[in-house]
Amino acid sequence: MSKLNVHTAREKAIKKFLHSQQESQSVYELVNGIVNGDKSALAKAITLLESKNKDHTTLASSVVHECLKHSGNSIRIGITGVPGVGKSTFIEALGTLLTKQGIKVAVLAVDPSSSVNKGSILGDKTRMESLSTNKLAFIRPSPSSGTLGGVANATRESILLCEAAGFEVIIVETVGVGQSEYLVKEMVDFFLLLMLSGAGDEIQGIKRGIMEMADALFVNKADGENKLMAQKATQAYSNALHLFPAREDSWIPKTGTCSALNHQGITKIWDIISKFKTEQIANKAFEKRRQSQSKSWLMSQLENELSAHFYSHPLIQENLNTVIADVVKGTKTPYAGSKELMDLFLGNKTQ
Amino acid sequence: MSKLNVHTAREKAIKKFLHSQQESQSVYELVNGIVNGDKSALAKAITLLESKNKDHTTLASSVVHECLKHSGNSIRIGITGVPGVGKSTFIEALGTLLTKQGIKVAVLAVDPSSSVNKGSILGDKTRMESLSTNKLAFIRPSPSSGTLGGVANATRESILLCEAAGFEVIIVETVGVGQSEYLVKEMVDFFLLLMLSGAGDEIQGIKRGIMEMADALFVNKADGENKLMAQKATQAYSNALHLFPAREDSWIPKTGTCSALNHQGITKIWDIISKFKTEQIANKAFEKRRQSQSKSWLMSQLENELSAHFYSHPLIQENLNTVIADVVKGTKTPYAGSKELMDLFLGNKTQ
Repeated sequence: MSKLNVHTAREKAIKKFLHSQQESQSVYELVNGIVNGDKSALAKAITLLESKNKDHTTLASSVVHECLKHSGNSIRIGITGVPGVGKSTFIEALGTLLTKQGIKVAVLAVDPSSSVNKGSILGDKTRMESLSTNKLAFIRPSPSSGTLGGVANATRESILLCEAAGFEVIIVETVGVGQSEYLVKEMVDFFLLLMLSGAGDEIQGIKRGIMEMADALFVNKADGENKLMAQKATQAYSNALHLFPAREDSWIPKTGTCSALNHQGITKIWDIISKFKTEQIANKAFEKRRQSQSKSWLMSQLENELSAHFYSHPLIQENLNTVIADVVKGTKTPYAGSKELMDLFLGNKTQ
Repeated sequence: MSKLNVHTAREKAIKKFLHSQQESQSVYELVNGIVNGDKSALAKAITLLESKNKDHTTLASSVVHECLKHSGNSIRIGITGVPGVGKSTFIEALGTLLTKQGIKVAVLAVDPSSSVNKGSILGDKTRMESLSTNKLAFIRPSPSSGTLGGVANATRESILLCEAAGFEVIIVETVGVGQSEYLVKEMVDFFLLLMLSGAGDEIQGIKRGIMEMADALFVNKADGENKLMAQKATQAYSNALHLFPAREDSWIPKTGTCSALNHQGITKIWDIISKFKTEQIANKAFEKRRQSQSKSWLMSQLENELSAHFYSHPLIQENLNTVIADVVKGTKTPYAGSKELMDLFLGNKTQ
């Protein structure tokens, strides 16, 4: 090694040391802020989580790791329903009810579609006007870009950070379209489905698979002349839910009506959620669900990373489109196409 | 290189040459047999496809590749319905109708559950007694083991082989539980859902997602005193189907009743399928669907191979369970666990 090289190597080592010092400093500061309930530290850490910069995500990962021992003490509530069902008004009403009791509430959002139309959800903070200025509440819009899996993982880690910051109720809002409900179901303890009454939407409004996942199904906007129709719709839903097979955790999904606008029925829902938590902690279903969620989170994270690694391989990037075209044309079987790409990836020589 | 080594290398080369000669001989014989409609060659090739032996699957892959240019000329029909709906009787009735017209019919089955209960489906060939002895028919039970994805891919390649063997109608049977319907939908042109009439099963019998995939929905066992109830049920299903959004391929799903036992309504269904094929070939939806199926088949095959490669890595096998346990216990985040495993897989050194 030449003198120059030694010099450079030493400089590099020093730089690396300083950088790592700096990094652990930032980690320490962020963790400290979060654990002390500092909302701006929490917001900053979540921004790092959602960043596309590798240094940021590595830093965020250390923060999450340090926060892990302070997390877990919350009830995680998923809320879904078609656009227009009144999710924001409902969350505002529930959040207001809880913060009045001194309970700290965090609201996160999962909206994979927002990568297309740039933050359709929670983007407009005025939608939760009183909650967003409430000292006991923390509201976080959905990340404005990223894959479905990426958004989901960032949200999962955000939940842990919110818990470390002392938030006792974590609400995860999702738009009632596509796959986001399935992702949210996988990260919450309790899943609330909000519905609308009205011609036809008993069948059209929401996919049956989503109804099957609900721990409670409430018909919102049960006010004024809508009230009677909402009660009728609730009865129909209640009948439908009874036909689903009994659940392993022995919980029987509850139904009812509410008017988020008039703050009616909100206490009833909170009572159901509290009862759910007590019962399921007692029968261990609560812990079991979280453990199995952690495991599937690990598996999906692994899958994401493995795919990302594969598709970023230079030879795959170079050849993928040609192989797809051949397969679509029918001149190559999918099996052969896949083998060709795997050989390129693994560096196997083919004759 | 020593003399001995040269000698060994030469022997190896000769052996390899002979082996490859032998292999191309087998490929040639199988392909030749299949293309000439030899059912035993077809059966043998499918057995190779389903084998766990790597030499067998490589051989099978070459056979499929050679058969590719002879494949594609068929209508691929998926048939599903709950156990007891009468799928076998129906397929026997449809197969008999078609073979009487000189049409060659192949019946394949996808049943991921058969890996547990060893060939619950089609295992008992007497279920299709007359069809199984029909010269124009080929019946193949589901592979008795393998992953969901593996079974699906073997079935996809079996379809191509059957087509190369001149079969004009390929029926893929699935049991009406779990995910097999989604896999089958992805490999057929036309998807037929068989239903039963009777108390409650309009709602219970089948998941709504499966109803949404159906190109036709027929209530079977519409005979004797069941007839009226079947007609009523059909009306209910018809109403429900009308509520689904319009399809991109502009096909409106058809409903009706049939009695496979009495061979009633079978011609009507075949007319629907024929009309579907004519229409969708004309409006290009047929070709478009097959192209998009080929692409997703490639992608899922890639995913399977990549996962298989990852999970068979010695360091992953050694460490996976410990990492899962740490994540489930909550002492490690899924993110950190995933990173640890990826580093092991990629051979990265971590400090």
